[in-house]
Amino acid sequence: MQQRSRSETGRVADLRPRVRVGVIGASGYTGAELLRLLSDHPRAEITVATADRSAGRLITEVYPQLTPFEGVRFAALDPRTVARQADVIFVALPPGESTAVVGRLMRASRRVIDLGADFRLHDPRLYPRWYHWRHRQPALLRRSVYGLPEWHREEIASARLVANPGCYPTAILLGLAPVVSRKLAAQAPIIIDAKSGLSGAGRSVNLSFQLPEMHESLEAYLIGTHRHTPEIEQELGRLADRRVSVVFTPHLVPMSRGLLATIYVQLRRPLTTAGLRRLYREVYATAPFVRVIDGGSANPKHVRGTNRCAIGVTVLPRTRQAVITSAIDNLGKGAAGQAVQNLNLMMGWPETLGLDQPGLIA
Amino acid sequence: MQQRSRSETGRVADLRPRVRVGVIGASGYTGAELLRLLSDHPRAEITVATADRSAGRLITEVYPQLTPFEGVRFAALDPRTVARQADVIFVALPPGESTAVVGRLMRASRRVIDLGADFRLHDPRLYPRWYHWRHRQPALLRRSVYGLPEWHREEIASARLVANPGCYPTAILLGLAPVVSRKLAAQAPIIIDAKSGLSGAGRSVNLSFQLPEMHESLEAYLIGTHRHTPEIEQELGRLADRRVSVVFTPHLVPMSRGLLATIYVQLRRPLTTAGLRRLYREVYATAPFVRVIDGGSANPKHVRGTNRCAIGVTVLPRTRQAVITSAIDNLGKGAAGQAVQNLNLMMGWPETLGLDQPGLIA
Amino acid sequence: MQQRSRSETGRVADLRPRVRVGVIGASGYTGAELLRLLSDHPRAEITVATADRSAGRLITEVYPQLTPFEGVRFAALDPRTVARQADVIFVALPPGESTAVVGRLMRASRRVIDLGADFRLHDPRLYPRWYHWRHRQPALLRRSVYGLPEWHREEIASARLVANPGCYPTAILLGLAPVVSRKLAAQAPIIIDAKSGLSGAGRSVNLSFQLPEMHESLEAYLIGTHRHTPEIEQELGRLADRRVSVVFTPHLVPMSRGLLATIYVQLRRPLTTAGLRRLYREVYATAPFVRVIDGGSANPKHVRGTNRCAIGVTVLPRTRQAVITSAIDNLGKGAAGQAVQNLNLMMGWPETLGLDQPGLIA
Amino acid sequence: MQQRSRSETGRVADLRPRVRVGVIGASGYTGAELLRLLSDHPRAEITVATADRSAGRLITEVYPQLTPFEGVRFAALDPRTVARQADVIFVALPPGESTAVVGRLMRASRRVIDLGADFRLHDPRLYPRWYHWRHRQPALLRRSVYGLPEWHREEIASARLVANPGCYPTAILLGLAPVVSRKLAAQAPIIIDAKSGLSGAGRSVNLSFQLPEMHESLEAYLIGTHRHTPEIEQELGRLADRRVSVVFTPHLVPMSRGLLATIYVQLRRPLTTAGLRRLYREVYATAPFVRVIDGGSANPKHVRGTNRCAIGVTVLPRTRQAVITSAIDNLGKGAAGQAVQNLNLMMGWPETLGLDQPGLIA
Repeated sequence: MQQRSRSETGRVADLRPRVRVGVIGASGYTGAELLRLLSDHPRAEITVATADRSAGRLITEVYPQLTPFEGVRFAALDPRTVARQADVIFVALPPGESTAVVGRLMRASRRVIDLGADFRLHDPRLYPRWYHWRHRQPALLRRSVYGLPEWHREEIASARLVANPGCYPTAILLGLAPVVSRKLAAQAPIIIDAKSGLSGAGRSVNLSFQLPEMHESLEAYLIGTHRHTPEIEQELGRLADRRVSVVFTPHLVPMSRGLLATIYVQLRRPLTTAGLRRLYREVYATAPFVRVIDGGSANPKHVRGTNRCAIGVTVLPRTRQAVITSAIDNLGKGAAGQAVQNLNLMMGWPETLGLDQPGLIA
Repeated sequence: MQQRSRSETGRVADLRPRVRVGVIGASGYTGAELLRLLSDHPRAEITVATADRSAGRLITEVYPQLTPFEGVRFAALDPRTVARQADVIFVALPPGESTAVVGRLMRASRRVIDLGADFRLHDPRLYPRWYHWRHRQPALLRRSVYGLPEWHREEIASARLVANPGCYPTAILLGLAPVVSRKLAAQAPIIIDAKSGLSGAGRSVNLSFQLPEMHESLEAYLIGTHRHTPEIEQELGRLADRRVSVVFTPHLVPMSRGLLATIYVQLRRPLTTAGLRRLYREVYATAPFVRVIDGGSANPKHVRGTNRCAIGVTVLPRTRQAVITSAIDNLGKGAAGQAVQNLNLMMGWPETLGLDQPGLIA
Repeated sequence: MQQRSRSETGRVADLRPRVRVGVIGASGYTGAELLRLLSDHPRAEITVATADRSAGRLITEVYPQLTPFEGVRFAALDPRTVARQADVIFVALPPGESTAVVGRLMRASRRVIDLGADFRLHDPRLYPRWYHWRHRQPALLRRSVYGLPEWHREEIASARLVANPGCYPTAILLGLAPVVSRKLAAQAPIIIDAKSGLSGAGRSVNLSFQLPEMHESLEAYLIGTHRHTPEIEQELGRLADRRVSVVFTPHLVPMSRGLLATIYVQLRRPLTTAGLRRLYREVYATAPFVRVIDGGSANPKHVRGTNRCAIGVTVLPRTRQAVITSAIDNLGKGAAGQAVQNLNLMMGWPETLGLDQPGLIA
Repeated sequence: MQQRSRSETGRVADLRPRVRVGVIGASGYTGAELLRLLSDHPRAEITVATADRSAGRLITEVYPQLTPFEGVRFAALDPRTVARQADVIFVALPPGESTAVVGRLMRASRRVIDLGADFRLHDPRLYPRWYHWRHRQPALLRRSVYGLPEWHREEIASARLVANPGCYPTAILLGLAPVVSRKLAAQAPIIIDAKSGLSGAGRSVNLSFQLPEMHESLEAYLIGTHRHTPEIEQELGRLADRRVSVVFTPHLVPMSRGLLATIYVQLRRPLTTAGLRRLYREVYATAPFVRVIDGGSANPKHVRGTNRCAIGVTVLPRTRQAVITSAIDNLGKGAAGQAVQNLNLMMGWPETLGLDQPGLIA
């Protein structure tokens, strides 16, 4: 595949060898966002992009925005071929469809970043309960690393299989980790009220996602039963060294990209807003993509198209509650951006490589 | 004022006398929605509509939608004149501006429905704290009735001054009242995560409400400090016969009309979703505008343009939390619709008079 | 079927007998809008509403907005049964599916208002060319009346089969008829640039209508080949007494309801904007639903949810062009509203019966 | 000013010297988009950004998206200081405000790219007529080059003052130039129906641009009197070597970014769609930012955030009309992107330098 390289257009060429990367499931929103980001990455070279239903179609026919891929076509999904064509492979398939593909790629000694849910839960018993299928590669499950770089940077650096977090868990864990890991949260369940744009639901055809249906629409869904719940609780439990329960309510709002989690934590001891903010800034001092803002509410508009997460903290002294807002782009830090960040860590490249563009204003 | 009457257009005329009603502050969104609803009301006749900045302008110049008012102009605000022209007066003015106007109308023995905040809080000491001004008619404050018909129907029927609830408190109180009045809520603070369309912020010019700023924007504001908080706590306290604390976080979402409150209540004893829903249906069996839905999440889209409130309830047994969703149209049940409902009660008319249109699909 | 009647809710009962009406294809946007409008109509009583795919489902399950139909279910489509249950039947089926159904209803001596395209073109040869099927009831075609009330009021009054115009033709013909019927248009083709919200495309599932696809999207479609073209030319030809050619380009804009046609006509003789506006006001002096505005551009927002059409006219003296803007609600005057207006005319009722509500502000 | 350079984040440093650039009027949408693009430009270094009303404020306080400018503040506008700090200066001021500023910068021998209207019209007599002020630097007017690179590449390369085209003229001229310069357009006026998102109106506070006002809103404005008209006619006249008249109707659609022009041209001789497309492709074969698409309608969604223009052509043989659609991002190719393209040409750099990112999907 020959996407137009930046160096041809006047930049100084980076003469270091590029790594061959593949994208499996490249025609969904997450896959396409991967193509967009990787096309501008100075060390990665996309050598194959598969899309079963769109196999044979021009990439720019499906996404005219992806101009660097002019003339390039989606390939059919054949893991063996992909394993020959690429050294690192991103897998962006629906839940349950990754397991076998990833298994084959791993056996071919490829590094894999899986953007689906199949390798995120360490306890295989959680799959039947939350996903209604039995995991068929429990051994791989043990080898997979949960790819939240801000909290597992070193594990990721040496991983061969990274399970890229879900969009909700990313925003929520980044928002909660400082307070949970420092044992500041009381035993009461943590309340998480999250709001997402529609692109988070994927590029699936659904009557209820049509514009006239979504127009002036705003609703919660899967209250208390969303599949990201065990993922959130697993990671919070590791940070807290104890079982943590959350009440998690996702909502769909009439926008395309963007995710905001508003999180309510009962604090174990009094803290001021300024004090809590200071703590968050210390924790994330070395995290290039996390920004603890001055105000109380983060806004996904401000991180749209980027790999950044904005976090606002407020302490309400009357009720000793912390209200934490955490905003990401569900396709950026919530999916493809974070996957590229993981690639950078796995390859020993600077963490921000290819991910440092400012966001789109307006 | 001579809006076109329905009877001229082929309906059988209702020959009973109409009551003369006035609208003060009729050019804002709430005032205009009042005009819309009252123009279709079989027993009310709008005799005066004031709008200080737009005084002298044609109503249809500002709102071409309000065709029944063709040829009619906004008047200047002179309480004495209005008191002569109308028997019941709706006041839709910004916070702090109602007090004097309402005082004068009351002295002229008019009935008043105030849609602002000036008469909602019974304790005058709350005004300096939350609104930063001292209430100048504390005596009137004692005479005002909080106009949430589902919970104060009889008081309203005999009131001369009704304080129409705020949009957030309406959705939240309707959602919480059953569980709070039945003493089912534990002592823990109740978490209220509310989302509103932009029309709730009024027809004020504000850079941050321009379309390119609101586009793909989603954020919380006034976390823990919104002025509707004391109003919510006052009414919950009355229902519970004890002090009730809430954590209230409003958000702005990129839509025009519609408000959804997602409410998290720790229950004192185990309940099932079905059991809680049954309780809600009992409580609201005689409330024509409240609908307890089968699913978990209400959606403001389904009550847009109406005076209805849709409520969904879910109990999460793992954490013994109830998650209640409550949806209204912020300009309908959250403002003008509820004011007309209050008018109906005050006049002894059927509660649904003029308010029974279905909502707009799509 | 027993939708809640307005009289129960405090209005004076209209004791004149109601006419039994049926809606075939009631689950699409047009059908649902018919239900909404007819539920508030003082002389019509909906006795049957069919929806093949949704047969058996509660109407309020599909459209929670349609509260007057609580407890009522969609029926399966059986023309014979419908003919027994209703005296006037609205048919809202996809192109090609009406022909047989309407034929059977007509043989059962029912009056029919067909909202599809099957009876709009008088020349059967146009169907193979524009719709790619041969018309199977050419005799019925000759008996059908084109239901644009402002221009065919008398024919409609005595019709048994009314072909309700398409949404684009409605806005365009109302905008063009004065200038074309008065022979003011030069021979040059008339340029029509029309923009529509998504609900005009019906309630069909389509990837390209999903919110993330439509978001910030704006495009023309079927340039020069849209099926409404022969309908527009047929009617303009009748008005002009000569063949009239149009260049018609429809666009989809990211909104739900609303249609604006911007029309460019080369004038045969110099006219001023004021003069042309005066002419339009004369022509539409007795049309209750057409409003010739003072400014140059109509806006569908101002007629949303109504049966109204707003028209703005401008003459550009430099080029002797008239620029006419014509705005409707595609589901209102562009479909269901106009169908109810036709019902009123067919039954000898006042033209505005049940159609005189103001539009929703904001 | 020290925006974070890409080279620090892992890219190979470009060791060639950077050119110092300044942005005057950097807090509007166009100015902010310039900051965004220039921060990622390998040869430009922003050394000053002024914003009179926001002088002293952090850039990221106004635009949190502009992370490369963290810690940097807007300066006050003092042309002398700017002239010392930068070698090339972008001026993004409201109409009429550029003239004096540009004059001073030119006297200081700086190169200037003016994004306003003050230097676009070569005939000073047009300013009183269309802008209602007399031009005070007519000499400079003669020296300014109209910055549409696809048609004036060489002039721009040697220019010291470039007048960056307006957003509408950019889309329209790119769409019309092939047919006009090849003398294919008949004498009849060319009809231009253009639609723009709200960001094109700038970051000004305006009640009618508030979300609830723009919601489901769609209207034409300044029909036949928009100030971009003389600019379009000036350039078309140069291409055609004769006076060309256009009928230009801009519309506002409820979106943030994006502009689509639908253009109707009467052809002088029969042509096929394929033939016309071939012609367009020949004409733009060497234009890296213009893409002649296969289909009939371009869509601004596909070029959002980029400097590209997509053009679709259709010939309607029945009426011998060409319907040309031309789509740009009003802030990209319609303003800031094109200004950077002009910078590249003026400096002798590759035309696409810093402008080759793919667009945002979804």
